[in-house]
Amino acid sequence: MNTQSPEHLATPLLDTVSSPADLRRMSVDDLTQLAKEVRYDMVRTVSKTGGHLGSSLGVVELTVAIHATFDTPRDKLIFDVGHQCYPHKILTGRRDRMHTLRQGGGLSGFTKRSESPYDPFGAGHSTTAISAGLGFAYARDLGGDPGDIVCVIGDGAMSGGMAYEAMNNCGDSGKRLIVILNDNDMSISPPVGALSNHLTRICAQRPLQDAKARAKEIASLFPTPFREGADRAKDLLKGMVIGGTLFEQLGFSYVGPVDGHDVPLLMKVLRNVRASETGPVLIHVQTVKGKGYKPAEIAHDKCHGVSRFDIVTGEQAKPKTAKISYTKVFANSIVQEAEDDPRVVAVTAAMPAGTGLDRMMERFPERCFDVGIAEQHAVTFSAGLAAGGMRPFCTIYSTFLQRGYDQVVHDVAIQGLPVRFALDRAGLVGADGPTHAGAFDIGYLANLPGFVVMAAADEAELMHMVATAAKYDAGPIAFRYPRGEGLGVELPARGQPLEIGKGRIVKRGRQVAILSLGARLGECLKAAGELDALGLSTTVADARFAKPLDTDLIADLVREHEVLITIEEGATGGFGALVLHHLAGEGLLDHGLKIRTMTLPDAFVAHDTVSAMYDAAGLSARHIVDKAVAALGLGEGTEEEGRKVVSLA
Amino acid sequence: MNTQSPEHLATPLLDTVSSPADLRRMSVDDLTQLAKEVRYDMVRTVSKTGGHLGSSLGVVELTVAIHATFDTPRDKLIFDVGHQCYPHKILTGRRDRMHTLRQGGGLSGFTKRSESPYDPFGAGHSTTAISAGLGFAYARDLGGDPGDIVCVIGDGAMSGGMAYEAMNNCGDSGKRLIVILNDNDMSISPPVGALSNHLTRICAQRPLQDAKARAKEIASLFPTPFREGADRAKDLLKGMVIGGTLFEQLGFSYVGPVDGHDVPLLMKVLRNVRASETGPVLIHVQTVKGKGYKPAEIAHDKCHGVSRFDIVTGEQAKPKTAKISYTKVFANSIVQEAEDDPRVVAVTAAMPAGTGLDRMMERFPERCFDVGIAEQHAVTFSAGLAAGGMRPFCTIYSTFLQRGYDQVVHDVAIQGLPVRFALDRAGLVGADGPTHAGAFDIGYLANLPGFVVMAAADEAELMHMVATAAKYDAGPIAFRYPRGEGLGVELPARGQPLEIGKGRIVKRGRQVAILSLGARLGECLKAAGELDALGLSTTVADARFAKPLDTDLIADLVREHEVLITIEEGATGGFGALVLHHLAGEGLLDHGLKIRTMTLPDAFVAHDTVSAMYDAAGLSARHIVDKAVAALGLGEGTEEEGRKVVSLA
Repeated sequence: MNTQSPEHLATPLLDTVSSPADLRRMSVDDLTQLAKEVRYDMVRTVSKTGGHLGSSLGVVELTVAIHATFDTPRDKLIFDVGHQCYPHKILTGRRDRMHTLRQGGGLSGFTKRSESPYDPFGAGHSTTAISAGLGFAYARDLGGDPGDIVCVIGDGAMSGGMAYEAMNNCGDSGKRLIVILNDNDMSISPPVGALSNHLTRICAQRPLQDAKARAKEIASLFPTPFREGADRAKDLLKGMVIGGTLFEQLGFSYVGPVDGHDVPLLMKVLRNVRASETGPVLIHVQTVKGKGYKPAEIAHDKCHGVSRFDIVTGEQAKPKTAKISYTKVFANSIVQEAEDDPRVVAVTAAMPAGTGLDRMMERFPERCFDVGIAEQHAVTFSAGLAAGGMRPFCTIYSTFLQRGYDQVVHDVAIQGLPVRFALDRAGLVGADGPTHAGAFDIGYLANLPGFVVMAAADEAELMHMVATAAKYDAGPIAFRYPRGEGLGVELPARGQPLEIGKGRIVKRGRQVAILSLGARLGECLKAAGELDALGLSTTVADARFAKPLDTDLIADLVREHEVLITIEEGATGGFGALVLHHLAGEGLLDHGLKIRTMTLPDAFVAHDTVSAMYDAAGLSARHIVDKAVAALGLGEGTEEEGRKVVSLA
Repeated sequence: MNTQSPEHLATPLLDTVSSPADLRRMSVDDLTQLAKEVRYDMVRTVSKTGGHLGSSLGVVELTVAIHATFDTPRDKLIFDVGHQCYPHKILTGRRDRMHTLRQGGGLSGFTKRSESPYDPFGAGHSTTAISAGLGFAYARDLGGDPGDIVCVIGDGAMSGGMAYEAMNNCGDSGKRLIVILNDNDMSISPPVGALSNHLTRICAQRPLQDAKARAKEIASLFPTPFREGADRAKDLLKGMVIGGTLFEQLGFSYVGPVDGHDVPLLMKVLRNVRASETGPVLIHVQTVKGKGYKPAEIAHDKCHGVSRFDIVTGEQAKPKTAKISYTKVFANSIVQEAEDDPRVVAVTAAMPAGTGLDRMMERFPERCFDVGIAEQHAVTFSAGLAAGGMRPFCTIYSTFLQRGYDQVVHDVAIQGLPVRFALDRAGLVGADGPTHAGAFDIGYLANLPGFVVMAAADEAELMHMVATAAKYDAGPIAFRYPRGEGLGVELPARGQPLEIGKGRIVKRGRQVAILSLGARLGECLKAAGELDALGLSTTVADARFAKPLDTDLIADLVREHEVLITIEEGATGGFGALVLHHLAGEGLLDHGLKIRTMTLPDAFVAHDTVSAMYDAAGLSARHIVDKAVAALGLGEGTEEEGRKVVSLA
């Protein structure tokens, strides 16, 4: 697409679309043109907002064809992951809000039930669509919401075991469910695993240049529904599928591969599938991630996730800071550890770049494993590596480790195996919103017997924690660190192992003690400055460990201060809870302690900038000040009130 | 097997076996005889202890053949689930402790790393073996523990997505790993799903009567290792596999089906696979669950899990009580709710009998779904059902819901969908030990925004909670209840919906308040009696809800009592933690409160009777008494000491 060519700048057809029903009145030629306009409109919008461009570019024609064929929202369209939903949002009444994408108060970057009736099932994480779709199918057949169900799922997501669980169940059920496999040979990185090879083989047997002709031939086999009846269509559909695919063995009818950028062909195939009375059917659509926008097509990651960019050059806005990201600090540190110790190995679940393990992969390709979007397997595979004598770092975003939780409990914790969990994206993560928040890991790990759980206050601390984990062989150990850039602190040449279960006093005061776990430490210090200025002498401590607790440090803080505030970037039931359990058990609450725990609130915090999200969550410096002031009975509510009361006092 | 026939009662060969090395010196005829002896010895032992008989009966010959072929423990034998490991335990130096099976201080009912070097990777939950095995394989090839890796996994476990994730990764890796698919066409119940159908098709194409001849023919194709070299063996192995199976598409060489009760044949196949230099290979072995012991062969569940039994008749010892089990109360209650409301549906992950949903399945077969061992899918499938207008009960043991945790967070909680989670086996579960304990669910659910979490104090309460959940449409709701029988309380004709977030005072006192969540209520009342007798007037309250908390009730207890003790059948970070968070936030700790939280300890509690486990966990009546007495400063340590101090006071 030449973005400078004037005829591409206009969107006359798209301007007439207020809902998908409008598409159903268009000719196939118009739909083809509409797809072009949607693509341009989307690139223009996302160039200003940033977002998941590559995936959305790949499904423009597919999205147009689905909405033109199916009776959405009565028919349910479920996007797996949901980050490929921008064309869908543009076509379903949200075009005028696309400029708010992923911003505070604006549209979500994913599908979201509360946002639109066209989003019957939201997402964010991958591999859920078929399970959800099958639920809708059973509900429909029991008298619940009517309509067809169309799930769009990528080939990367198909490496998740949940897809297999769902297909195993679905294929057996015989339920009518349409699964569109969006095969772009990419997840965020190129997909790995045998399934990916299998898909490649299918496509090699019927190369892309043949796919069009074949699929036309296939489509011509279908009778139009009213002419010959649905039963016959079903039989023909069954006869048409290509033998021997994995999907057929799981009980699906298989159609494909189909060129996913050919609107007329897609229309034919989808219409015929819709008219048939088939059970579960898998339509294998081949698309190109980043399709139709040159800078995306040639980019290594096909512009998977972009910041604002120049629409002509594709050049993305650079972050304003030169501070190093936590991810990069982790990446450098693990390579240092791996250089020293041949037993250090690393595992990622389809996120080599996101986790920074791409550096390790370059340096030690034989010691860094990408197992696909398969967190369950990643955890137990790591446990096996540990049992076999390695020192594995299982490197998974906090939010995605939820998917391997049973494996963490059953294979790692109960067996006491020394797997190192590196949890990136801990706490609130900004534009990706609540589905990607790392909100629960402190609790769900630190309440497991035998686990050591650390959280990094800054990027130098992260280096020390990588070093600590590398050397720790006594059992499972986890360390969490936030998304984004560090504080810009000076970095040591090498991380030094920390003493297990020991925190540190960062600033000494006398009246208020703030005990921080993780990267709110900066806010704590800011709050301490304000409190000091109010005449409330404040100590700030960095707990470093949620488990084991530094009970000496806690006793010291309790003894020497009037107020103790704990703060963490996580939900209730985590660090603060363990401090409270400890204090209660030791009788340290018997005689009164002004203790307050600051955690994420009992609500999912909507997407915004990270800092605005923490503000909404009540975990900024001003909230800490308020909390301390209120605990001392010097004021309630706002910091200003507190300040006033204190200055009166 | 005629257990009365004298020649079967002797175990002359088995008596000579002190380790698997002894098997490698035996002739194939002797190994065949040894298998018979192992089977008899096992039946005899398990008749006295109870245990997982059916699965173990099915793998006697296979276990003998594996140990006779592979150099265990240098070669790693990993049993998936681990409940089929009794022949393995008998042959690996634990025969003389088999009479302690599943009893306090005795052998675990599963494989366990700490128990034997022959158990390289323990289990309890299913579907982990291939992931662990692949970890060992990579570790080996990087200089870690050497040796071959043999994973034995059942066809039921193969419905878990994790198996697919592991095979997808393994098939792609080309790593040498031997997976033995133990296909007995059963998990605990007959398996469901398309994979099961696929296996049936494979077997139908090559029926069992042919399998022996075929496999012999296959085996004869292999050169003996030293005669012709391993490379040639590899080529032949590759040539021998049967085309078109799902396993091949995932990159495995496929061998089978093989009669899993034919020792000579198994020896040939295993020896040849061992000698070959293949990458990942799947050996499809057909076995009969319960094989060789008539009462097991004819039993509906093939004696999956048995209590002590009469070895001649197979008749199992009946529980001494006539009290109804929690599971049965749940089963009856959900059927009542389903009778009233056509939207009530239920989902089980391969546990229809264990969860009691077999009753619902009989009564409403079209509204009760067994999705296979596939908890991830079960949860999101339930979310889809809810989104489609149903009122789904997702019925999963507490310990197994860990496997669907991300789906609980991402698909249910974030979307606020009204999925009802019925969590059986909450708390400690007895003979199955720590892998099956429901220890963490209170914390991992109640810390999720929007979740309602209940725990039943007795079986009548469970009825009310089923009714409460059925009617509650505002969001996700969970209720947990213990394994085993209830207290024998009178049951109402129907459960009545409870007021959300309201507990109840069960017994009024003045000095000590015990706030119980769940089925420790009986112990609390017992403790209250003792405390009253000590002159410490005690209130007992049943919280009913871990979330939302009954803050009025808590305020009342704090106001009116000197000591507040919370107790729950779960880890830290759960109910007690939420009470503490609340009290801290409200400033109710500022002026002193003798509060103590009683939770499961920070250790995995070893298998024993349920009551002994709670005793070890410190959650029995006497511990509650001690806690109260100590909190009042009247005594430390034992109840007796406390009693003495009080009587002195």
